[in-house]
Amino acid sequence: MKRIGILTSGGDAPGMNAAIRAVTRRAIDKGLEVFGINYGYAGLVAGDIFPLTSDDVSDRIQRGGTFLYSARYPEFANVEGQLKGIEQLKKFGIDALVVIGGDGSYHGALRLTEHGYNTIGLPGTIDNDIPFTDFTIGFDTAVSTAVDAIDKLHDTASSHERTFVVEVMGRGAGDVALWAGVAGGAQKIIVPERDFDIKEIAQEVKEGREQGNKNMIIVLAEGVMHAEDFKKELDKYGDFDSRATVLGHVQRGGSPTPKDRVLASKMGAYAVDLLLDGKGGLAVGVENNKITSHDILDLFDSKHKPDLSLYDLNESISR
Amino acid sequence: MKRIGILTSGGDAPGMNAAIRAVTRRAIDKGLEVFGINYGYAGLVAGDIFPLTSDDVSDRIQRGGTFLYSARYPEFANVEGQLKGIEQLKKFGIDALVVIGGDGSYHGALRLTEHGYNTIGLPGTIDNDIPFTDFTIGFDTAVSTAVDAIDKLHDTASSHERTFVVEVMGRGAGDVALWAGVAGGAQKIIVPERDFDIKEIAQEVKEGREQGNKNMIIVLAEGVMHAEDFKKELDKYGDFDSRATVLGHVQRGGSPTPKDRVLASKMGAYAVDLLLDGKGGLAVGVENNKITSHDILDLFDSKHKPDLSLYDLNESISR
Amino acid sequence: MKRIGILTSGGDAPGMNAAIRAVTRRAIDKGLEVFGINYGYAGLVAGDIFPLTSDDVSDRIQRGGTFLYSARYPEFANVEGQLKGIEQLKKFGIDALVVIGGDGSYHGALRLTEHGYNTIGLPGTIDNDIPFTDFTIGFDTAVSTAVDAIDKLHDTASSHERTFVVEVMGRGAGDVALWAGVAGGAQKIIVPERDFDIKEIAQEVKEGREQGNKNMIIVLAEGVMHAEDFKKELDKYGDFDSRATVLGHVQRGGSPTPKDRVLASKMGAYAVDLLLDGKGGLAVGVENNKITSHDILDLFDSKHKPDLSLYDLNESISR
Amino acid sequence: MKRIGILTSGGDAPGMNAAIRAVTRRAIDKGLEVFGINYGYAGLVAGDIFPLTSDDVSDRIQRGGTFLYSARYPEFANVEGQLKGIEQLKKFGIDALVVIGGDGSYHGALRLTEHGYNTIGLPGTIDNDIPFTDFTIGFDTAVSTAVDAIDKLHDTASSHERTFVVEVMGRGAGDVALWAGVAGGAQKIIVPERDFDIKEIAQEVKEGREQGNKNMIIVLAEGVMHAEDFKKELDKYGDFDSRATVLGHVQRGGSPTPKDRVLASKMGAYAVDLLLDGKGGLAVGVENNKITSHDILDLFDSKHKPDLSLYDLNESISR
Repeated sequence: MKRIGILTSGGDAPGMNAAIRAVTRRAIDKGLEVFGINYGYAGLVAGDIFPLTSDDVSDRIQRGGTFLYSARYPEFANVEGQLKGIEQLKKFGIDALVVIGGDGSYHGALRLTEHGYNTIGLPGTIDNDIPFTDFTIGFDTAVSTAVDAIDKLHDTASSHERTFVVEVMGRGAGDVALWAGVAGGAQKIIVPERDFDIKEIAQEVKEGREQGNKNMIIVLAEGVMHAEDFKKELDKYGDFDSRATVLGHVQRGGSPTPKDRVLASKMGAYAVDLLLDGKGGLAVGVENNKITSHDILDLFDSKHKPDLSLYDLNESISR
Repeated sequence: MKRIGILTSGGDAPGMNAAIRAVTRRAIDKGLEVFGINYGYAGLVAGDIFPLTSDDVSDRIQRGGTFLYSARYPEFANVEGQLKGIEQLKKFGIDALVVIGGDGSYHGALRLTEHGYNTIGLPGTIDNDIPFTDFTIGFDTAVSTAVDAIDKLHDTASSHERTFVVEVMGRGAGDVALWAGVAGGAQKIIVPERDFDIKEIAQEVKEGREQGNKNMIIVLAEGVMHAEDFKKELDKYGDFDSRATVLGHVQRGGSPTPKDRVLASKMGAYAVDLLLDGKGGLAVGVENNKITSHDILDLFDSKHKPDLSLYDLNESISR
Repeated sequence: MKRIGILTSGGDAPGMNAAIRAVTRRAIDKGLEVFGINYGYAGLVAGDIFPLTSDDVSDRIQRGGTFLYSARYPEFANVEGQLKGIEQLKKFGIDALVVIGGDGSYHGALRLTEHGYNTIGLPGTIDNDIPFTDFTIGFDTAVSTAVDAIDKLHDTASSHERTFVVEVMGRGAGDVALWAGVAGGAQKIIVPERDFDIKEIAQEVKEGREQGNKNMIIVLAEGVMHAEDFKKELDKYGDFDSRATVLGHVQRGGSPTPKDRVLASKMGAYAVDLLLDGKGGLAVGVENNKITSHDILDLFDSKHKPDLSLYDLNESISR
Repeated sequence: MKRIGILTSGGDAPGMNAAIRAVTRRAIDKGLEVFGINYGYAGLVAGDIFPLTSDDVSDRIQRGGTFLYSARYPEFANVEGQLKGIEQLKKFGIDALVVIGGDGSYHGALRLTEHGYNTIGLPGTIDNDIPFTDFTIGFDTAVSTAVDAIDKLHDTASSHERTFVVEVMGRGAGDVALWAGVAGGAQKIIVPERDFDIKEIAQEVKEGREQGNKNMIIVLAEGVMHAEDFKKELDKYGDFDSRATVLGHVQRGGSPTPKDRVLASKMGAYAVDLLLDGKGGLAVGVENNKITSHDILDLFDSKHKPDLSLYDLNESISR
């Protein structure tokens, strides 16, 4: 193995640049050449490929987004698309790849490995919804952005004694809501993994008000329902002077937190080591503070489990 | 004059606490006693009034919101409400007041002055829509929060070559949009004070894309239309992979910027000096870097003018 | 057990307020009464003790420092001091305690337990130098503050092609330096746990410059030597236009990161659960993402081990 | 005039990139070609000059530092150096220049104008020490960074009832200290423009302590004396558990505030307009919210005057 390629795929996440940097530097340190592939699998197929030097990844670790750009490219699910990609790998003499992205990106990684091009997947998504990893690259930053917003809403909630319904990202998983809810001091956290009863919540808000709770925040995972709809449901049970806020795409951007940078750096270096060991078709994770890897095939049969102890914790300390 | 009262009214704004601190400390420094009134005019009428010491306003300058709480209280437009308020002022021996809030709060200030209780108004609103002042308390912080969000959206816009329509606050005035647009490097700024043609904008976006502009942000003042509606209109003219984001109430909160803290401190101290001079019925402003005051009556006949040179500047440097 | 007390001791750390909030709320949720003790062991001895309600810990989770104040109080090492403290516990009817602080605070916790007052210790220190816990409360925030500063120094280092020697906190342990170094993209990390040779470092800086590395940052743990002394040593081997910067006490303050808030909340609730189980003399930790506890006695025989894999990682990816 | 050049000189300041962007985009908008000159006057003499496109300045407005790099180059004071620079201008066909930097940079701008190359100076320095402008590019960001640090020190100062002596930047001018002091809620501000008596200050600190003031911050302009020396002097008069902190070069970096970005954008566009009007030898400023220009020659006879009303304001509201 002499040359490796690297691409980012699916939704962008803070820390992707830190991962690209680590992959690039580690590979160069081990005597490999590195090629960047723009726009994910779309760029692979189109041959949008260029050599990456140590210098190219300088001053990148602190930047949000991905400087290799990302794109969704469902066509790579077809053999035709894959063969076009492999043609490009041959043309550029690339022997193996690192792919940073979400669940969907791993399918392509598996196909490339099957075609003889060892490919390692790194979990880059703010949603934290990938199996066999406690944390994904970008999750800590997204939580941090959400909590920063919740802190600001607390100021105005306190001043006006309002109730805010804050919709945070996480289509299928409640992780962002759970972490942002506990860290933001939310009155209630609503996640897809737990049932809820709006009437009961309205009752709690009412009692909270009566006990002098001035700054009530309800954190809602987007996978459950829309904030505006939740607010409307809530308003049926009383006048809570409530407001709905959707944090939205802001959560995808921003300079990655130190935790995300360190995680991305560790995972990126580890991916190169796996390739050097002749491995492929693996997804890198962090489990119990250790960097691990699992067969991508196994991931498809598994489901990420959020830390629901946070839900129960919040119930007992949000008063 | 021995005792002054202070209240915050209308929508809360970052820097209100800094203003309360400055009023309190300056007044105590000049030998006065100070009383805080909770919940604006509603609290005045209800007698929710308590003595404020220098210590009470310690560790407050950096906090968002208002620790005196705020509320809208239309009933204070009636003489009945005013007389109840005056009864409370008599009861607590308060001779004069400082009121921090938006346009609406100034009506109450004028009525109290007419009843013999000199009252000075400070412009506390993130909208910057008050006449006779270049800047209101809270505006700089709101712009800062909006620009921070736009910077984050730039990350993800660049990574995916998306177009974002970002709705910022400012019902009647385009100030937040103008400042956040220029500072955020927006492609376009849409404000109530200037006409626009969505078809032309779509054309510009299309051309920008063709010239390689990867991170297009359109900043939209909420007074013009909803971001989601704007996006739908835009989408009629092409596929821009556009997204709508509403920054919302987050812009009201957060630790005030140094500029807002300094402005609030200067204005707060000045308000006390005006009261000591036996003045009332005045609104404090900052014009050409100098703290000034104007008859509140004159404000009602005037209209705030945003700095539209920012609009033209942006047209020439957003490429 | 009906009443528990809580105090913070030693150097303050971001997240202490989140821990106090969690202890208070969990205890109240379980039917206990809670008393806050100001100024650590000094306040215990002096009887500076007051009841804490759920309301008292509202709007605290996001605040840096500790609203119970902290103090060093070596006199508590003597039996005399301890007995005075116990007298106060009797007076206020407090049966058990939670103590948040560093290593030193645990001695007092052990003594109180020996005297029959079950006491649980929580690791509150930015240094991360406590055995049997992967992370202490405050560490993530301190790293975040340090990295924020390093990012800013990168801007000016790049603009002027300067070398910065940045001294970060951590007297006995290199943890802050290791994390901030990797996350900050440092050229070199200097920690007490690893030898270094300034002449070799000077050589590396020289070679880095020649290869076009414009923004060199050397992160130095304060336990090794002073930044100014390091800079002087470095300057003996060449003209690197170097500057020394000591981040200092800024690293102790600031709003805690979500990670610190969640950690503090989990640990605080867990401490109450241990007391309810009739346990004492234990130190709470987080190991492999699980909240754990160990005999404080065992801690005294152990030594915290930083994650030195970060050192090696940085050597291979800092170019 | 067909081609203009742009360089940054002296100490870097946040907002320089925003100014470069505005100059470049405005010039291109007006049909000019733009050349970037790296490393200030040193790069001009060395011919480190390259064409700048609209794309080159994309995604720059939010970055700290200067992507054209900066350097001090005293040799440009000599005619010999100037003639070498002019040779390069001829070679690249550059007719006029914009120079962003501090006081020193303006001498070069004047000399180039005298040689027939109209040059406009923009005030880029965090110190705010330039005559005929109320604010320099970078000042607002530096104050913001300083206040952020002071807020963090407040947390730990409150928790431990310590006194912090915080040294902020500003060699010859007290502006950063005055703004950061008022905005940071400092107990005292020490600037070169006002005398002070350490004994009296110690007395004030003592009295403050007795009145319950827990978080005392003394903000010291670096031009007065070193924080460590001040602390030592202070300690002669009592035990204040004081700490000295030097904020240092961190104040030079970081993403520019919206205010700095807007100011830099306005000034950059205006500089191009002046060149198009055939003007040179002028320094751009902002006075009373209006963008203005003055003969550079007049600047050399003038002295910047800080807003000392802030000093008096702080005396009356810091209790």
